[in-house]
Amino acid sequence: MKASQFFVSTLKEAPADAEVVSHQLMMRAGMIKRLGAGIYNYMPMGLRVIRKVEGIIREEMNRAGAVELLMPVVQPAELWQETGRFDKMGPELLRVKDRHGRDFIIQPTSEEVMTDIARQELRSYKQLPKNFYHIQTKFRDERRPRFGIMRGREFTMKDAYSFDRDVATATLSYQNMYAAYQRIFGRFGLEFRAVAADTGAIGGELSHEFQVIADTGEDAIVYCPGSDYAANIELAEGVALAAERAAATQDLTLTPTPGKCTCEDVAALLGLPLSQTVKSLVLATDELDDEGLIVKSTVWLLLLRGDHDLNEVKAGKIEGLKGGFRFATHAEIDDHFGCKPGYLGPIKMLKPVKVVADRTVALMSDFVCGANQPEHHYTGANWGRDLAEPDVVADIRNVVAGDPSPDGKGVLAIQRGIEVGHVFLLGTKYSKDMNATFLDENGKPQHMVMGCYGIGVTRILGAAIEQNHDARGIIWPEAIAPFSLVICPIGMDRSEEVKAAAHKLHDELAALGVDVLLDDRGERPGAMFADWELIGVPHRVVISDRGLKEGQVEYQGRRDTEAGKLPVADLLLELKAKLKL
Amino acid sequence: MKASQFFVSTLKEAPADAEVVSHQLMMRAGMIKRLGAGIYNYMPMGLRVIRKVEGIIREEMNRAGAVELLMPVVQPAELWQETGRFDKMGPELLRVKDRHGRDFIIQPTSEEVMTDIARQELRSYKQLPKNFYHIQTKFRDERRPRFGIMRGREFTMKDAYSFDRDVATATLSYQNMYAAYQRIFGRFGLEFRAVAADTGAIGGELSHEFQVIADTGEDAIVYCPGSDYAANIELAEGVALAAERAAATQDLTLTPTPGKCTCEDVAALLGLPLSQTVKSLVLATDELDDEGLIVKSTVWLLLLRGDHDLNEVKAGKIEGLKGGFRFATHAEIDDHFGCKPGYLGPIKMLKPVKVVADRTVALMSDFVCGANQPEHHYTGANWGRDLAEPDVVADIRNVVAGDPSPDGKGVLAIQRGIEVGHVFLLGTKYSKDMNATFLDENGKPQHMVMGCYGIGVTRILGAAIEQNHDARGIIWPEAIAPFSLVICPIGMDRSEEVKAAAHKLHDELAALGVDVLLDDRGERPGAMFADWELIGVPHRVVISDRGLKEGQVEYQGRRDTEAGKLPVADLLLELKAKLKL
Repeated sequence: MKASQFFVSTLKEAPADAEVVSHQLMMRAGMIKRLGAGIYNYMPMGLRVIRKVEGIIREEMNRAGAVELLMPVVQPAELWQETGRFDKMGPELLRVKDRHGRDFIIQPTSEEVMTDIARQELRSYKQLPKNFYHIQTKFRDERRPRFGIMRGREFTMKDAYSFDRDVATATLSYQNMYAAYQRIFGRFGLEFRAVAADTGAIGGELSHEFQVIADTGEDAIVYCPGSDYAANIELAEGVALAAERAAATQDLTLTPTPGKCTCEDVAALLGLPLSQTVKSLVLATDELDDEGLIVKSTVWLLLLRGDHDLNEVKAGKIEGLKGGFRFATHAEIDDHFGCKPGYLGPIKMLKPVKVVADRTVALMSDFVCGANQPEHHYTGANWGRDLAEPDVVADIRNVVAGDPSPDGKGVLAIQRGIEVGHVFLLGTKYSKDMNATFLDENGKPQHMVMGCYGIGVTRILGAAIEQNHDARGIIWPEAIAPFSLVICPIGMDRSEEVKAAAHKLHDELAALGVDVLLDDRGERPGAMFADWELIGVPHRVVISDRGLKEGQVEYQGRRDTEAGKLPVADLLLELKAKLKL
Repeated sequence: MKASQFFVSTLKEAPADAEVVSHQLMMRAGMIKRLGAGIYNYMPMGLRVIRKVEGIIREEMNRAGAVELLMPVVQPAELWQETGRFDKMGPELLRVKDRHGRDFIIQPTSEEVMTDIARQELRSYKQLPKNFYHIQTKFRDERRPRFGIMRGREFTMKDAYSFDRDVATATLSYQNMYAAYQRIFGRFGLEFRAVAADTGAIGGELSHEFQVIADTGEDAIVYCPGSDYAANIELAEGVALAAERAAATQDLTLTPTPGKCTCEDVAALLGLPLSQTVKSLVLATDELDDEGLIVKSTVWLLLLRGDHDLNEVKAGKIEGLKGGFRFATHAEIDDHFGCKPGYLGPIKMLKPVKVVADRTVALMSDFVCGANQPEHHYTGANWGRDLAEPDVVADIRNVVAGDPSPDGKGVLAIQRGIEVGHVFLLGTKYSKDMNATFLDENGKPQHMVMGCYGIGVTRILGAAIEQNHDARGIIWPEAIAPFSLVICPIGMDRSEEVKAAAHKLHDELAALGVDVLLDDRGERPGAMFADWELIGVPHRVVISDRGLKEGQVEYQGRRDTEAGKLPVADLLLELKAKLKL
């Protein structure tokens, strides 16, 4: 490819609204162009990366036995009404009426359409298992689109759906996809981690996220360097940090702590470790009547060690909190504790509340907690003696680095990640909602057991850049770079030798199947080099008159700090080694 | 590919709503699956054909120097308001509001977004010419979707847009695309014809349609077998069928024609050729005030030879009719002619009307026409003597087979076609509406001259089938067949020899890059053959125990009436010849 036949368009400055580095660099490198909030044109340079990402996904999905089809972008509402998602999903589901006033949606995902196809096409156990996928444009009307294409509204996603006769074979299908995802992300050349994830609103039995490791990632991922344990922090199990509760050694003492509302301040004042304090969080749940009016509210007190944070996902799994909870109002707090936040605690409350203690808190003794009196805390508090045992003991905290791994094989570490893939064992949620059945060996209809498997194709680009960039620009991994190698001739318009050598090298590499670009735009060397470093092409060859006279060309890998020389005589051989051909 | 790892799903009967053969066969062959009116899932077998069509288009577009990008499906209304199309386009433009109430459209085409990119990116004459294209999902909310994917609502289209500095270079860009389209449709292996077309509502200077020839096509295409003249009937020029007007030989005679309202009936009654009669059509145009109320209407009388039909596109180009016309009301006809339709004519009207005579009518003499009296016609009517010369003489008829070709090189023939591609020299319509300018050598801003070039990717499938099918099913042209060759083993479960031979042949062909499918489903031979004939795979090899014992396999090309034998010894060589490898 010659640059003159392609389209290279770079910017010195990123637009002001580009908050994260991947967004800035994609805009500057001319990969994307903003059309509206969260809606981008993929310019030729960006589209090349998308096509490479899609190509790898397609190869590995096919290798894993999945079959590609294509479902529409505009989907009739009826199917989404069968599963209730037409009503249940919020405004992120873009709804549209056609000329006849019929309801449609712009697909954010395709469980409904896929299940509809399966219930018509897969009628016998002999046809199972089956896995279908498509790579298609999706739309989610995000309230606040941001981070460029990482949280855009229109995006490209690969979504696959497996159909099985039972949970045992569905688990095999799930593992098959898990393995395919390992290969896919491995081939991208990205540092990534598969982590156990919460199954959340979709429900289901088993779920892993594929996270691209990047300091700027929105997700905290927890792993054990000594084992293969890895989980999203939403799910990562916080074990009790003591084997058993030590005996009480102190008396309960009302201690003045004027102006000290946080555990940190109280610990500092008292000269105690933060891990001796207990944090009180007051939540509330509401019972509603048929008309949605509150008929009864319950107040909950959640207790965490002073150096721990609440994990709302875990709290949401506790019986009584499952249906949703909120922070308590000031009136509710006053009513139950007779005190303002900052000094609340589990001892001497005005009215009974449901007390949930984190596993670690339940094993503490001689601890410090709010006294339900302004400007006072208790020290020397002890379960059983000073207050009743908690109503519920549960894992309700975020793990922290250094916690013991739940598998007992070391301590946990935490890093940031960007979720780019997700595999779900869905179970029968959709097949039951939509009555997708097959006939088993006995001719009896059974609900299919489903899995779904997504990869955010366009999001991969952003994640790859967040992980791989420097001050000069993007550093594409070889497998998904828009071009593998760029030839930068210096003074091609003046020197026939440079022109001939540049074209010869271009043609030779192209014949080998290398994605090579010859920059024949006639830019100055500095501008030309800056462009290709910004765009992030892995290999650069500079051909100049002076170099040719010495029988050499200049070579620089995108991660190299300095350029080196390659002999013209062995150029192709040397480049094949660099390109691992 | 093994059938067991793919998805084959055929139907004995087409659904009742499938009107045309391509729709019926695509449904029966499991290529598409209806999701809603005009909205289809592309099943694995159909998607393979789409990918091959896309691949050929992409290769030839790239070869022609066009650069691929990707514009969004959901597009902000603002750009469509700049060109006025947001309001002007009818309900076929699917409009949608996002969560913030902002207007968007689901793209039916991308002139606006492309011109927006060009006005930002192409700033200098040095960057021109440039041609961008994308292959993307489009939506047109057809009032009556039909013919399967040929007139669906959601479809895939390739649309390209060229930007040039002036009409001369834009014409070269147009010719470049015209040539690329010739290569593309040639490679598809379809019989097609490029025909001059009306530039219609988009306007512009030059336009050709690429029509796939098929008896069931919606378009009538006119061509001259003795030359390269070819045009859509909307545009094909109807020359005058006489060199000059003959002198009058008859008197004007009021002739009773009771109950004879059509030219055919009158000619039969009077024993005259139909070509001696003149047909009267009464149209009206309205002048509107600022509020859209009619302030004045004008009645028009259009005269055609009795054996000719009105061409509304041509009529719409006449000064005074350009702004749109309608058929006149009964009241208007009464008021101007004092007579009911069936006996209307250009002589002795009650009020003056604008008379438009077709070129051929203007040269007739001694003709028959309605007398504006119930149950009467005139015979022997002559221009100048019995009625004034027409206000306008113009080509307003559809040509008919046997008409002289406008290029004087023979007579015209007519065949039916399906429009699958369209190239347009747009001129500056969009660049002026959206102020898309570049700076010329003198630093002066100039409007870019645009061309646009579409191919209906999914429609190609329907058109290919309309052209290539028989009673047994689809006959795919080699280049776009879902599979090139199918291996049908007989009794593979019983015979290790058959199994081994089938897999060996599969692997050898796959290694050669042949799109081969091994049917390992274990179907009965009859059902297996019927499936692949329905699906339309070009080459079939049947491997059986008996054949192998004789050192032979059976081969049948999809168009062959009978199967032949190929020696196992030379099998690969023979098949390579069949596959033109």
